[in-house]
Amino acid sequence: MSLILDPAAQDLLFREARTANTFTDEPVTDEQVQMIYDLVKYGPTAFNQSPLRITLVRSREARERLVKHMSPVNQAKTADAPLVAILSADNEFHEELPRLFPAFPQAKDAFYADRTVRERSAQLNGILQAAYFIIGVRAAGLAAGPMNGFDYPGVQAEFLDDDHAPLLIVNIGKPGLGAWGERAPRLGVDEVVTTV
Amino acid sequence: MSLILDPAAQDLLFREARTANTFTDEPVTDEQVQMIYDLVKYGPTAFNQSPLRITLVRSREARERLVKHMSPVNQAKTADAPLVAILSADNEFHEELPRLFPAFPQAKDAFYADRTVRERSAQLNGILQAAYFIIGVRAAGLAAGPMNGFDYPGVQAEFLDDDHAPLLIVNIGKPGLGAWGERAPRLGVDEVVTTV
Repeated sequence: MSLILDPAAQDLLFREARTANTFTDEPVTDEQVQMIYDLVKYGPTAFNQSPLRITLVRSREARERLVKHMSPVNQAKTADAPLVAILSADNEFHEELPRLFPAFPQAKDAFYADRTVRERSAQLNGILQAAYFIIGVRAAGLAAGPMNGFDYPGVQAEFLDDDHAPLLIVNIGKPGLGAWGERAPRLGVDEVVTTV
Repeated sequence: MSLILDPAAQDLLFREARTANTFTDEPVTDEQVQMIYDLVKYGPTAFNQSPLRITLVRSREARERLVKHMSPVNQAKTADAPLVAILSADNEFHEELPRLFPAFPQAKDAFYADRTVRERSAQLNGILQAAYFIIGVRAAGLAAGPMNGFDYPGVQAEFLDDDHAPLLIVNIGKPGLGAWGERAPRLGVDEVVTTV
């Protein structure tokens, strides 16, 4: 017995894919980002709320502004990556629910009532979509370097607004020389899965 | 230009995969769960912290205890699914860091100092892993039904402990009759991606 996903796809997305810390100079195009999005947009979220927003940091000026907010260990690789994406959650996602979840027209009002509930939902579902996005980057034959080592309020103030909360920042490109070290061990299934 | 992931794999994981609300009676075995875990355990987390824990709710008695904590709309499908998994985050993940992230032996102590930082990190990285798990379920040819409509403190008290925070509950099986309706629309790339 085995997974029905093709083994080459398993390798591409999980087994051989690695977090990259260096990249080649090869650019990552808007068309590649669009292809990635057009695949991973189908990943499930609660009420199809789809709160993920993606800010591509392309200009030299914007990249310099971003690097200042990264943890020291993340600064050089964020400065050098072909493309950097700020992933955020739209806390006003409920405005789109009448279109995104027509099966339950009351969904917008249910979320409208409570900003705290909305922020928690945007956070949970935005992070799920961030993971789909990482998988999508790999599906494009690129390596992702997801990072949470940055000044969250600083990045929000510099690039977003009060309604958009940063989730992760992801370096994207073809892996360069010494992009990663030895694969670290994973927990065994018996350490993770229990049955009741 | 296209993604390098095989189109059949794209369909299996994203384009044709759907959240299932009904399932056939076909069981989901421990071996299938192990195969899923052994693939998705390679998905990236910060410091390889791997906080996701999985509680399989198999016994009739446990399933009845779980159903009481589900939102009304989720009760029948959770009662009937071949397998239900409670996904949680281990807030004491730092205990495993010396083994999981040998490249930075100080990581355990850095997280040990602050439970709040640890909980946030476990939440973020546990949700990333929950998304990888959903993709893995689909890679096994099964349908996932992820739900956040349940009493989080109730499920934690009933099945977990103070160190494990529920993230999502996922019904798993082969899709049954009327497992889903029409696919809801997604946001266009221009509504999601901006460039600076």
